[in-house]
Amino acid sequence: MNKFWYADEKVDTTPIISSRIRLARNLKKYPFMCRISQEQSTKMVEETTERLKGRFDLIDLAKMSEPEKRHLLERHIVSPEFLKIDMPKGLLVQPDERISIMLNEEDHVRIQTIYPGEDMDGAWDVANKVDDLLEETLEYAFDKDYGYLTSCPTNTGTGLRASFMIHLPMLEKTGHIKNVLNTVTKFGVTLRGIHGEGTEPLGHIFQVSNQVTMGKPETEIIGALKNVTAQIMQSENELRRKFFKEKKLDMVDRIYRSYGTLKHARTMSGKEAMELLSSVRLGYMLKILDEPKPNLTIYQIMMNIQRGSLIVAAKKDLTDLERDTARADYLRGVFS
Amino acid sequence: MNKFWYADEKVDTTPIISSRIRLARNLKKYPFMCRISQEQSTKMVEETTERLKGRFDLIDLAKMSEPEKRHLLERHIVSPEFLKIDMPKGLLVQPDERISIMLNEEDHVRIQTIYPGEDMDGAWDVANKVDDLLEETLEYAFDKDYGYLTSCPTNTGTGLRASFMIHLPMLEKTGHIKNVLNTVTKFGVTLRGIHGEGTEPLGHIFQVSNQVTMGKPETEIIGALKNVTAQIMQSENELRRKFFKEKKLDMVDRIYRSYGTLKHARTMSGKEAMELLSSVRLGYMLKILDEPKPNLTIYQIMMNIQRGSLIVAAKKDLTDLERDTARADYLRGVFS
Repeated sequence: MNKFWYADEKVDTTPIISSRIRLARNLKKYPFMCRISQEQSTKMVEETTERLKGRFDLIDLAKMSEPEKRHLLERHIVSPEFLKIDMPKGLLVQPDERISIMLNEEDHVRIQTIYPGEDMDGAWDVANKVDDLLEETLEYAFDKDYGYLTSCPTNTGTGLRASFMIHLPMLEKTGHIKNVLNTVTKFGVTLRGIHGEGTEPLGHIFQVSNQVTMGKPETEIIGALKNVTAQIMQSENELRRKFFKEKKLDMVDRIYRSYGTLKHARTMSGKEAMELLSSVRLGYMLKILDEPKPNLTIYQIMMNIQRGSLIVAAKKDLTDLERDTARADYLRGVFS
Repeated sequence: MNKFWYADEKVDTTPIISSRIRLARNLKKYPFMCRISQEQSTKMVEETTERLKGRFDLIDLAKMSEPEKRHLLERHIVSPEFLKIDMPKGLLVQPDERISIMLNEEDHVRIQTIYPGEDMDGAWDVANKVDDLLEETLEYAFDKDYGYLTSCPTNTGTGLRASFMIHLPMLEKTGHIKNVLNTVTKFGVTLRGIHGEGTEPLGHIFQVSNQVTMGKPETEIIGALKNVTAQIMQSENELRRKFFKEKKLDMVDRIYRSYGTLKHARTMSGKEAMELLSSVRLGYMLKILDEPKPNLTIYQIMMNIQRGSLIVAAKKDLTDLERDTARADYLRGVFS
């Protein structure tokens, strides 16, 4: 078995944390989500699950607590929308969490693959295979002119969303991120917060993804996204070099202070922890931070200090205050 | 030989860092400072020095650099006024820096004793002995009604200023210090910053001293100061207990964060360092901070990170930036 994608050291090697593919598909014989009945939903989920169950773990959301569901979200296995939908749902996941399939999200089927670091080809290749596997027995809603049909017209065509999760501390701190945002839009690319649309870019982590899904083959869409992302990365790396040259002491000081605080604080908000971890991630990457690296990847630590994760680990509900203490305790442990 | 007063562990045991006595005296046969000539000054300094030189180290200010002089100030051996006066001056110090005598400060002779922790009786006793020793051969300007005559009428009478240097972090952080200030004034006591009049209370350290010097015997003045100081200490200790009970996590968190920053920062202003050291001093005293205590007293560290001290230690001039780096380097060393 592969490692969890987030435990792979490639996650911490470049500004790119992960490469993700999402394919939106619908089955021809069922009405789309806005019109499907409770019964039809159940049937659709059962039928699709049947097709896949030998190869995936089946997650029963009905048996999960709210924090456990949130924990799925924090690991990017499900989308926030999926958790909100009040219909029969299905969730299939591979043990390494690199592939997951949501049934009855906005579309009947959402295939998702996440690969560590900069590996969009790997993610695409696997998503494609899962897609083919499903297509062997299930008939997709497909139009020869439009392509794959989806609930929301913005996904119609390839049904593809490719996205890099990328750590851009210097672009954000200097405010240059705004220019990047304006520029990428012109290339049909969007930049969003860590958990997708409308979420805050905690820890200076962004998702760069394609906006256009129609009119071009998948490889071309992915190619364009790669080019734009390479340019964003270049801007980030240039700023890192510039600051390292011109404001080295400030940079080094900020990184070591962040480390010192992570190692000693007794209570900490999620927002602050993400900020400090961002600083420490940069420190290790630039080889500024000459302190032992934790056994986990920094992004893995970032996931483990989220609300759901902390509550699941504590095996009991935690108040806001208890969560901040548990977070600080966990971080002290990790960095000691 | 005794330890330097600031190296004695009594300095770190209670909120009171040191107990200090200053006696202002003038010699009958010379005009007071505002009227004394250059020549007379020289003669006065020589004559007084002659009387004391076997028992004290003679410090030649003329041979000292500005940072070295500043370093004397930071160790409370001289007053800021003394350094400013542009006349022949004399300075005599005992090796443990517990007794110093300034010649030609505002008055001809200023005897000063500093004892570690809460030991005003010790400081007074020694100051008294030095005073007697001088009086054996030198005739003081003395009036049977007014007492010792001084340049400034506020010192006339006993010529005594007794002061406790006291660490009041909770009184200052809660703003209660203002009430204390108003109250103590009614008892003829003043509260000032660390290096006397008009200076900022860095690191939440204050000087509590008597305002009235006339009309009462020395022991009574000292007794009154002790009472007022005991009450200030009680208020401080009550606040410490209250916060430890009601806001323990905040308090513990702040102390450990301060420790973490002192241990890891790469550059630090003097003001921030004093703030963090104040927090750490409180942490050790309340036994909250469970980390190895440095070999130096916290107040000694506070002295060593001052401008003059850093430059003297570096044996070369330092820019502002270099000083902040040297300070952080020193602190990392001390806490590692």
